[in-house]
Amino acid sequence: MLSITKPTLVLNSDICRGNIRQLARKAREAGVLFRPHFKTHQSAEIGEWFRNEGVSSITVASVTMARYFAQHGWNDITIAFPVNLLEINWINNLAASVHLNLLIESAETARFIASNLTSECGFFIKIDTGYHRTGIEFSKIRLIEEVLKSAAGPLLKFKGFLVHSGNTYHAGSREEISRIQSFTADKLLHLKKHFIYQYPDILLSVGDTPSCSQLPVSEGMDEIRPGNFVFFDIMQFGLGSCALSDIAVALVCPVVAMHLNRREAVIYGGAVHLSKEQTLLLPDPDPVFGLVVPWDESGWDTGTLLGKVKALSQEHGVVSLTQAGCNLKPGDKVAVLPVHSCLTVSAMKRYYTLAGEVIETLTV
Amino acid sequence: MLSITKPTLVLNSDICRGNIRQLARKAREAGVLFRPHFKTHQSAEIGEWFRNEGVSSITVASVTMARYFAQHGWNDITIAFPVNLLEINWINNLAASVHLNLLIESAETARFIASNLTSECGFFIKIDTGYHRTGIEFSKIRLIEEVLKSAAGPLLKFKGFLVHSGNTYHAGSREEISRIQSFTADKLLHLKKHFIYQYPDILLSVGDTPSCSQLPVSEGMDEIRPGNFVFFDIMQFGLGSCALSDIAVALVCPVVAMHLNRREAVIYGGAVHLSKEQTLLLPDPDPVFGLVVPWDESGWDTGTLLGKVKALSQEHGVVSLTQAGCNLKPGDKVAVLPVHSCLTVSAMKRYYTLAGEVIETLTV
Repeated sequence: MLSITKPTLVLNSDICRGNIRQLARKAREAGVLFRPHFKTHQSAEIGEWFRNEGVSSITVASVTMARYFAQHGWNDITIAFPVNLLEINWINNLAASVHLNLLIESAETARFIASNLTSECGFFIKIDTGYHRTGIEFSKIRLIEEVLKSAAGPLLKFKGFLVHSGNTYHAGSREEISRIQSFTADKLLHLKKHFIYQYPDILLSVGDTPSCSQLPVSEGMDEIRPGNFVFFDIMQFGLGSCALSDIAVALVCPVVAMHLNRREAVIYGGAVHLSKEQTLLLPDPDPVFGLVVPWDESGWDTGTLLGKVKALSQEHGVVSLTQAGCNLKPGDKVAVLPVHSCLTVSAMKRYYTLAGEVIETLTV
Repeated sequence: MLSITKPTLVLNSDICRGNIRQLARKAREAGVLFRPHFKTHQSAEIGEWFRNEGVSSITVASVTMARYFAQHGWNDITIAFPVNLLEINWINNLAASVHLNLLIESAETARFIASNLTSECGFFIKIDTGYHRTGIEFSKIRLIEEVLKSAAGPLLKFKGFLVHSGNTYHAGSREEISRIQSFTADKLLHLKKHFIYQYPDILLSVGDTPSCSQLPVSEGMDEIRPGNFVFFDIMQFGLGSCALSDIAVALVCPVVAMHLNRREAVIYGGAVHLSKEQTLLLPDPDPVFGLVVPWDESGWDTGTLLGKVKALSQEHGVVSLTQAGCNLKPGDKVAVLPVHSCLTVSAMKRYYTLAGEVIETLTV
């Protein structure tokens, strides 16, 4: 039984396991490899819930995370982040013991890795199909050829092309997400066709949570790598990826002040707990930092909205209250559904299940 | 000597000690108590640098921080956060061993604390002079009287009125900060005058970093509680509170990708390291998540700007490069001056000095 007196990250493990089961089934039915991104939960224990659904290949965002999960028995790991040359020693260390894939997007980097590897290691070329954060633009065939040439060597093995369509996070509708997904698949299939004679085993790897949770897997893709779906959050709710009742984590916070003259409450729960991520929930024109719902020791209740977090300081949250929220008083507890669960987890670093068990994450 | 391979929070202790010295002197010369807010650095070791400047009274933002600093020998602590009734046991525990002050802003809370205290404890009434986050509006004399009446009892002692003028963070000029400061002082002096016959020892406590660092202390104030000045940051630079060279912390990050076609770099250093705080640096119309400057093992150099962080994902930072920044390459390291040092410290939880020493913070 949970006894909460300060901001506490609570995990509903039934919802979480359900989310895992659903996407594992979708991947199985589509005949693609499910290589979930573990950057969202960052927890060996939650990793086991994936293993129970048949998952054995994972994605992580850093060498540090790869080391952590390798220590916990995962041996097929893709670090889906432009490879950090400064960590070559750790990369070699990992590549000696697990099947490791890196992400490469420039000829210099390919050259450096090819000449400094001491164990066999795979790599994907990161392709940009419109998000414009990282990757080689899909049309730059000559640049891709240059990377492949620079990667030549006995230990660095080309695996395929990888895209993160983060632009789905800015989509205004499911149709737009679908257009982004189709465009990405089309460009990847085009690349595969171009390089297949040279590399007959090219894999195509995709997988942001909005398209993976809302749409069928595109024809011709080999693996999907969603991460956030394990918990979902308000941002995914706003994008149509989940219902509020699919969100598996909430920050439980004490109410410390009521300002009914402006229909506001202040909670102990701020940017250091939730992260300062904001989102829009249309038609509301103002940014939201979390949605506030009732909490009791048996869990939170998404059937009633008490308010929305309208501002965050370091330790304070300012909540704009609904009529139902106006009955709160100092000493009450509320649950805040986070805007971006990955960042909230990273800030809190420890979950409490509804049964009161502690689940640790990677802490560095 | 520091050997950095991944995002690392580096502290220039000379700059930091200089910032502490300067504000300690200002308080001394103004004849007010310097009660710095320790929520920014959250470190027992940096606390000692304050003690060296004669500081013996501190401010914190939570019971957890109060416990940490009490364990490290601080015995005059104000928790400048609306008191969290759920932590009454810890409050009693603390009040039994140190001089503790709480913040109260409602009659119910005052009643609860007065009837549940087991040791003597002080309290300030939080007054709102325009920030509208927490506190009783300065004009609500009857509400203040009600709080004072509800707080009556043998153990809860009224200390005075406390304001955080966080609205200075939205000021467009030093003149505006000055107007906010004067308005606040005026309203506090008015309250003191009203209550002085009943409470002859009323203290007036103020102290946001913009007004404390830019302006003389207002006439009639008894203590100042700034916190951020210990490190400063880009937000304070934008407000005119400091020069770039006064910023005492930077996140050192590896460059992992260059996209010269759009004059961008990608660094390993994202929202989980810097926090997702943003600010405007006029006349640039776009938000900034950090300023990027050169780094070598002897420190960072604010004389050259390599770029600004224009976007943050969980682990990625996207940097919009200056001409000088276009010479970077993967494997290089850069220093990012944070937008909000309090949040960056809270995310990183550990400093490395330029000499390579580790300084720990409170970790919970």
